[in-house]
This record gives sequence, structure tokens and C-alpha cells, in this order.
Amino acid sequence: MSETPRVLRKITGNHLEDFRLGQVFRHKGGKTVTEGIFASFTEFTMTTNPLAKNARYARAYGYRGLVVPPGLVMLVAFSQTVEDVSENARANLEYIDMRFGAPVYVGDTIEVETKVLGVKPSSSNPKLGVVHVQSTARKNVGEADEAIVMTWQRKVQVWKRDESKTVDEGEVAPDEVACELWLPPHQPGRDYKGMAHLSSGDTYFEDFAPGTRIEHWRGRTMTDEHIHLTAVLDNTSQVHCNQHMIDLNPKQYVGGRLIIFGGIPFTLCLGLSCPDVHDNALGDLVYHTGRHTAPLFAGDTVFAATEIRGKRDHATRPDVGILETRLLGHKFEKSEGAAASDEAPAGYKKTQIFELDRDIVVKRRSHYA
Amino acid sequence: MSETPRVLRKITGNHLEDFRLGQVFRHKGGKTVTEGIFASFTEFTMTTNPLAKNARYARAYGYRGLVVPPGLVMLVAFSQTVEDVSENARANLEYIDMRFGAPVYVGDTIEVETKVLGVKPSSSNPKLGVVHVQSTARKNVGEADEAIVMTWQRKVQVWKRDESKTVDEGEVAPDEVACELWLPPHQPGRDYKGMAHLSSGDTYFEDFAPGTRIEHWRGRTMTDEHIHLTAVLDNTSQVHCNQHMIDLNPKQYVGGRLIIFGGIPFTLCLGLSCPDVHDNALGDLVYHTGRHTAPLFAGDTVFAATEIRGKRDHATRPDVGILETRLLGHKFEKSEGAAASDEAPAGYKKTQIFELDRDIVVKRRSHYA
Amino acid sequence: MSETPRVLRKITGNHLEDFRLGQVFRHKGGKTVTEGIFASFTEFTMTTNPLAKNARYARAYGYRGLVVPPGLVMLVAFSQTVEDVSENARANLEYIDMRFGAPVYVGDTIEVETKVLGVKPSSSNPKLGVVHVQSTARKNVGEADEAIVMTWQRKVQVWKRDESKTVDEGEVAPDEVACELWLPPHQPGRDYKGMAHLSSGDTYFEDFAPGTRIEHWRGRTMTDEHIHLTAVLDNTSQVHCNQHMIDLNPKQYVGGRLIIFGGIPFTLCLGLSCPDVHDNALGDLVYHTGRHTAPLFAGDTVFAATEIRGKRDHATRPDVGILETRLLGHKFEKSEGAAASDEAPAGYKKTQIFELDRDIVVKRRSHYA
Repeated sequence: MSETPRVLRKITGNHLEDFRLGQVFRHKGGKTVTEGIFASFTEFTMTTNPLAKNARYARAYGYRGLVVPPGLVMLVAFSQTVEDVSENARANLEYIDMRFGAPVYVGDTIEVETKVLGVKPSSSNPKLGVVHVQSTARKNVGEADEAIVMTWQRKVQVWKRDESKTVDEGEVAPDEVACELWLPPHQPGRDYKGMAHLSSGDTYFEDFAPGTRIEHWRGRTMTDEHIHLTAVLDNTSQVHCNQHMIDLNPKQYVGGRLIIFGGIPFTLCLGLSCPDVHDNALGDLVYHTGRHTAPLFAGDTVFAATEIRGKRDHATRPDVGILETRLLGHKFEKSEGAAASDEAPAGYKKTQIFELDRDIVVKRRSHYA
Repeated sequence: MSETPRVLRKITGNHLEDFRLGQVFRHKGGKTVTEGIFASFTEFTMTTNPLAKNARYARAYGYRGLVVPPGLVMLVAFSQTVEDVSENARANLEYIDMRFGAPVYVGDTIEVETKVLGVKPSSSNPKLGVVHVQSTARKNVGEADEAIVMTWQRKVQVWKRDESKTVDEGEVAPDEVACELWLPPHQPGRDYKGMAHLSSGDTYFEDFAPGTRIEHWRGRTMTDEHIHLTAVLDNTSQVHCNQHMIDLNPKQYVGGRLIIFGGIPFTLCLGLSCPDVHDNALGDLVYHTGRHTAPLFAGDTVFAATEIRGKRDHATRPDVGILETRLLGHKFEKSEGAAASDEAPAGYKKTQIFELDRDIVVKRRSHYA
Repeated sequence: MSETPRVLRKITGNHLEDFRLGQVFRHKGGKTVTEGIFASFTEFTMTTNPLAKNARYARAYGYRGLVVPPGLVMLVAFSQTVEDVSENARANLEYIDMRFGAPVYVGDTIEVETKVLGVKPSSSNPKLGVVHVQSTARKNVGEADEAIVMTWQRKVQVWKRDESKTVDEGEVAPDEVACELWLPPHQPGRDYKGMAHLSSGDTYFEDFAPGTRIEHWRGRTMTDEHIHLTAVLDNTSQVHCNQHMIDLNPKQYVGGRLIIFGGIPFTLCLGLSCPDVHDNALGDLVYHTGRHTAPLFAGDTVFAATEIRGKRDHATRPDVGILETRLLGHKFEKSEGAAASDEAPAGYKKTQIFELDRDIVVKRRSHYA
């Protein structure tokens, strides 16, 4: 080795000026869902739906085995897109039309493609702009059970690297993606009642009334475990795991601290709501829209609530109904002198951190219990 | 959504007045033992018995694969009972007659039922009482290899919610539960000696002398990892994971901090004792009685010791013997000005945290090495 | 139990005077690689090579499934030797001639033997000496696919327990160990190009130029997760997990704190370098030499760089080449008043923590993309 080697530093990810309208990224890596990541995430979130906990129950319902819950499908698929789409992002603005398809099992391998639907420079800040993308996740590409497992759009605020560069501004139409939630057929011969004690008895479709808000009872304090959890997902964004980078310039970063990857409160809120809302769900149909409304840090305790906004029949399946909900996440922050209220105890204010408009396919008691 | 939704908060778990003598809970969920939870717990405890570490060794002994160690069987089974039995408990008072049956393998699904044996209001505190229960865990219910894997009783101190309610006081007899430890047959043709180097050479049945106490050498510092570990077990008790709840009223909670779930020192003490005590065990027969004698917090370092209290032959198997032990867990707490003693170094006192009377089935050197 | 039991404390591991030249340890335990430990380590290190992430890709290349990356093979194999070789070590001095053989898959069981090649008392400190050993790891001993997966030498500084004892000083020759990296055959009929988007496009053999140093972009902050990670590996050394022991005598221990097990920065540096260096590698051929040059503690952020030192053809395989590299790990430590430099930002100094001379087998673009 010579004493003066040539030094290389690769720029990873794309900046605003690098995105081309209609461009398609076939993301690197892909990820096989192991029992390791399944246990870390499904169980960390306190998910209670037996489809994700009890293999004999899942098989009896017609699944091949333990079902990877939608929150974990989302985390694995979403993380595959980070390097190309949001490694140089300032913030993830919105999740849009997130739909689920085939069930994902342990051993399945997920690969993702993303199309650029829109690029728009900021009118006020020449260093920023918004990128609008559509991503689709497939499992077991090239194998007999290849299937689409998820598709979604998102808008993300991305930094520009070189202000002088032009931007490929505009918007193109999203692709039609055939992604419909697979449901195991209801078979009258199956002994659903004999397994009914394994899920909660008061979360069938008949039990929900629009106009109610359920304050979920459990809270969960996050620790710096989030660094490990984020790495295990292949999310490579440095704002979640590089304390030295934060220390050099804390003012540049939200809160001056390592921020928790948004996918973690996303899936944690889903888990905290599970015993009250989707213990008897067969799947999540669509997340119409969702966003993070405040950052989360190690030491914060996450709580969740669900608004029941509507109910409707399923087009083809009388054994289930569709529950229209809004999932809300929040935490409490110290607030000197604040009086107690319906919203928060004395000395605290309630800060909303997450919201997600979510349609769920829920079993009817008439058919399953 | 109307602006004034009706707010629901579900009360989870039972209070003293909710328990009925003879009542049976068929607990929700069930849990499939994945390789994820197997690795987190078996290996976190520093278990050294090759049956739980080396699949080719376990198969050569006649097991189907890696054997889930008794501490993890207990954690998985016990946690299934928390919501119904002890979500509203003040303390777990005693483990009684905890017996093991069929071996548990990765992929097995555990489901648990609990019968209420006794309810007794406190004579001194109208807000408290003791509930006495008997729980039985089965694996693979309804499948060809359905079997009882564990049965136990416990007494737990539970809060009353409404002091004016009457309590179903009394005691009923426990059920007879056919739960006997399965042992792989000793087959003279197997090359046990060729594998003997994989376990410690000085922990055969012949090596133990009643009247000795083994101070296990290794210690293990617990971190706030306990929050994650507890969630992964489906233990939903908020005193282990909800820092906000503690902050609002620290005096109500032991130590004013998140307390570590007792199952964690239980299994950690088992692991720390493994190289000296059960490296050559084929299984744990029974835990006659056990209790937590002091709380454990993040930052504490756990140590363990084992008293050898007796030895006896196995009724039907000349290749093994039964070792009668008491497992003790302890930690050291700072104690200003304390002199050094046999028990603790200067400036510290020794605090016992756990004890368990435990009969173990141990291989004889004459047959295995 | 009598009131005055006889107390036993087992001495674990060997001290300098216990080692005999030419002695062979057949290490206890063995370890089956579960999906739990695979996920914890492969993904924690931010490894990006699809062979370790994407099972359908690995199968398409001719592997049986997900390939355990060399860093994890090393961690599992090395840890098996700790109790016998380095439980009573002061420091691990050097890794030598670390070579890889058969691929390791989830479900494989690794067992290790170690031969004592040298023992040498310190000339300056009668309490210390150096032990030189050669270890070989096999998988699935006694089964159809038994194979050598790794062999290596190391030198370790070990404490003497009894200064008056003589030491078996000397050096014997290492064994010849047939351990060559298995490579899946290149088959022209396979659609390698159809999978080429899953790995980085600029890390084929043709892309590397000797005389360059690649500063890898990502950093990773370590937390006290290292305690759990080390236990999960069966590394039993108390300096990584027993805070009470440190508190009693902090001056005796490096930094007066729990030190992170060297295997963790070893594998983390490999992972951080992956996207730039071995995203298109088929395996690691040999680590000629390696050492830890400074300790790592919880809170430190790890960075890595790779020097490209040479390139050569593979003796029998035109589809790959051998890349000769030096992997370097470092962290930044606060340094009052330090001016900014090429090496470190103002107020910090750069501290090298690890170096490893490493030959990698890398695919040629001509054959694979």
C-alpha cells in the first residue's frame, strides 16, 4: 500500500436532482423473513392476534403457518426502498393507498420495485423538494408462489445536493397494481368455534360501533433498542444509528438526538391496538393515508387509540365485514405547570405522534364463534 | 367521525372479586416457539447443556431436535396466564409443584388452561387478597403429538377493584394432572461416550455430594433489554414496560422504577447454574416451591448458587438419578460502611432475590461417559 | 441441608501453567445456528450481500439457502473456544491465518477443536504469558455433510494463577488443515444477469484499483446491547457482562467499564464495509492477520475503511478474482482543543480500533452482470 492512497467516499442514495419522472428502481438486497426477525417484531409490538402467534390456529384457518402481520410486512418492504428513495430525506411526509395482497410466511423472500411518480422543488427552500413514489413488494420472485404482497405510494421531502442542477419536475400517473388482500375461504366444516377462546370475545365485526374511540390500555416505553431494531430491518438511514454524526451538529437534527425510525411507532401502535381492534381480523385491507406528526425518542412511552369511523359489508364475503378506523399514536411530554385535563395528567401535555386511516377485514361472530 | 366520540377504555384482566372457585380459564393466544424466541432466551441465560445448543447431540440422544430448556418452557407457558390471572396483581407469591412432561421443540405451539383453586381476601387490607390457581400447558392441541408439557400451581396477590363486592372465598382441590417428565430411552448401542466431551465432565450424578453449596462463578448484568424480553414473551403487565405510568406515581411501585419480570431472574438463575449443575441433566422433574424474595432492576448483576440437598434413585431408570437441589439467586447492593464478610465485599450487602426447590434428572457416568 | 454446607467454587478455564504443548481441546457445547442468532448478527451488522439476505438469490447461485456470512461463522466458532483458551486471558493479541471452508447454513451445528502450539512466559511480568493455539471448526460432525468450515490460529495473553508453577514452554508446528473455500460452480445457463440488480453495480472485481482507500460512509453506535449479543454467542468472559465485578475494582479493567467483546467490532466492521467491498463476493478466503488496537465501549460509534492492496487471479476459476484488502475500524474520541484535520473533526481524535488483512473472492462483471 502506498503511503498516499487515493481516498474514495461513495455517495449513497439519491438527491432531489437525481430522480427522473417514471424512473423505476429495482431495489437491492431483498429480504427473507426469518424466524428471528419475525420474533423480534411481531412480539415486540405486543400483537395478540393468534394468526401471528399460534401456528396451529393459523393452519386451521387455511394459512400455511404463522402469518407475518401487516406491520412487519410493511417494515420489511418499506426498508428495502430507503437507500434509493429516502437515504437523503429530511422527512417522510405521507403514506398513501397502502394495500396488502398475498399472505407472507416465515421463509418468504420479499423484493421491491419503486416508480417515481412526481418530483417537485420547494417554492420556499431551494435545498428541498418533494418526491412522490409508488412501490410494490413481491414475494418469492421467479418461484411457484410468486405474488404481490403489498403496494403503496409515499411522499418524501428530499434534500438537493447541488442547487444549480435542474430538477425533473412533474407528475405521472400511478400504475394500476393488482393487489387485493387474500382471505382464507370460510369453510363451514371447520371447527372455528373450538378455537374461538384463543382470540378476544368482544372484537367481532358486530361489536364495533361507529362514533366510538377506544383508548388502548397498554403503553410501551422505547429504549435505545431502536438502533438494533432499525438495523435488523436494513434501514440504513444514519439519523437512527450514528450518534457521532449527531454530536458533531446536533442543531441540524430533530431534537438533537437519534430519532426513532418511523416504522417502529407505526408497527408499535398497530400492536398496542391489537387486543381491542384486530384480534379477530383476517387482515388489513388498506391504509388510505398516514403520517408521523411528531418525533419519537428513546425513553418515550407510546400509547395508542383507535376511532371507529365506519363499517361496511365485504363485496363478496358474508363472513367478514370491513371496519373503517383511524389509528392514533401519542406520547406524554412534561409541561411545567400544566393542569390535569381529559387529555393528560397534571404536569404533562399529550403529543400526537402518528395517525393512520385504516380499513380492516374483521370476522363476524355469526360465522366464527 | 363526530367531534365527541364515545370513549371506551377496556378493563383488562381480573380483579379479586372476579375470580370464581373452580372456574377454568382457557387462555387466549397460544404461542408457537420460534427460533427467534429460542435464541433470545436459551442463549441469553448462558445455558450450557448441549441438548439446548447442539441439534446433532440432541438428535443422537433421541430427541427430535434442539430441546427447549425448562426455563423457557416455563416462561412461555406462564406468560400465557398473565392477562387472566395476574394482570392486576400486586405480587406473585409462590410457585408450587411445577412439573414438566413432554419435551418442547422449536415449532411446537403451547396453549394453557388455568383453574381457580382458591380465593382469600386479606384480613388486614380490604383492597387485596390471594388467588390460588392451577395451570396446565399443552403442546400442539388437536394434532398427532398433542401432549402436556407442564403443570403448576401458583399463589398471587391480586387487587380488588370494588371493595363493596363480595368475594367467592374458599378452596377447592387441585385436579390430578398426568404430567411426567419424558426421558429418551437409554440405548446401549448409542455412542454416548463419543459425545461426552460436549458436556462438562464433572457433573454426572456420581459427582454430587449432599451438604455442598456450589457458588456459581458467572454473573450477568441486566440492562433495560428486559422490556423487550418481557414483551417478546407476551407478558403484558405494565409494571415492566410503561415508564410513564411509573413516573405519574412512583411511590405506588416497588422501587419507583420499572421492575424486571420475575420470569427473567428465574430463567437467568437456571442458566447461570447450568455448567455446574445440569450440564448432564436430561430434564427438570419438578420445582416443589419457589419464590421471588426481592425485586430486580436494570443495572443489577445477578449471581446464583445451588445447594445439593439430596440424591435418590429414579424409580424405573438405572441410567439416571434424581438430584434434589435448592437454587438461590442474589445480587449485591451498595451498603455504606459495610465491612467485608464471607457473604459480600466491603461496602456491599448480599440480597437474595430468588429461591427454587428443584429436582433434576441427571445422567450417571456409568451409563453415559 | 446442614447449616454449614461445604462451599464449592469451580475454577473455570485454564491458566498459563495449565496449557501443555500439543494438547488438544475438544470444546464443549457446540452450537446450532438458528434463525434467531442469524438475524441478530447478520442484520445487526448492516451486511448487504444478498447471499446472506435473500434465500432465493442464494439458492439460484447454488447454495442450499441463506449463507451465514464469514463474520458470524467466525463469532460462533471462536466463542466455542473461549472457556478453554481465553476465559482467563488479559487480551487477545492476534488472529493468524484464519481460513474458511464449507458454507454454513441455518440449521448447521458447529463444533470446534483447538491444539496448543506454543506457550511462552512473559520476560517482564511473572504473572503473564502468551499461548498460541490452532483451532478448527467442523459442521455436522458424524453426519453426511460433515465438513471443515473454518480454521485459524491465535495468540492470547493469559494470566498465571500460581507463579511458582512451571510452564510447558516451547512451540510445536501447526497441523496441516485441509480448509479451502467452497465456491458454487459458475454455470453459464443460470440467469445471473436477471438477479444482478440485487447487489451493488460497482463492486465487481473489475471495479477495484489497488492503492485506493474506501472510507465507508455508514457509522453505527453501539449500546449496552453488546451484553446480550455476547451472551447469545456463548462467550462467557465476565469482562463483557459482569458490572459488579468491574465496580469492585475498576482500575484492574480496561477503561474501568464493561468492554465490548472484540468479535463484535470485528463483525461490525465487516458489515459496514459490505456495500462498498463485498456485495459481490462469494466468500472470504483468508484473514492473514488481524488485531484489536483499542477497546470499544457502549456509546462509541464504529466506522470502517478498506484499503485495496492488491488483486490477483483465482488459480482455477476465471469467473472470480481475489481482492487483497486491509479492513480498518475506528472511532472518534473527544479531544479538548484538537483542530480539525483530514482525520477527525475539530475537538475529536480518530482512534483505530481494529485491523484485518483480508483476501476476498469477488465475482467478475464479465461473468455475472
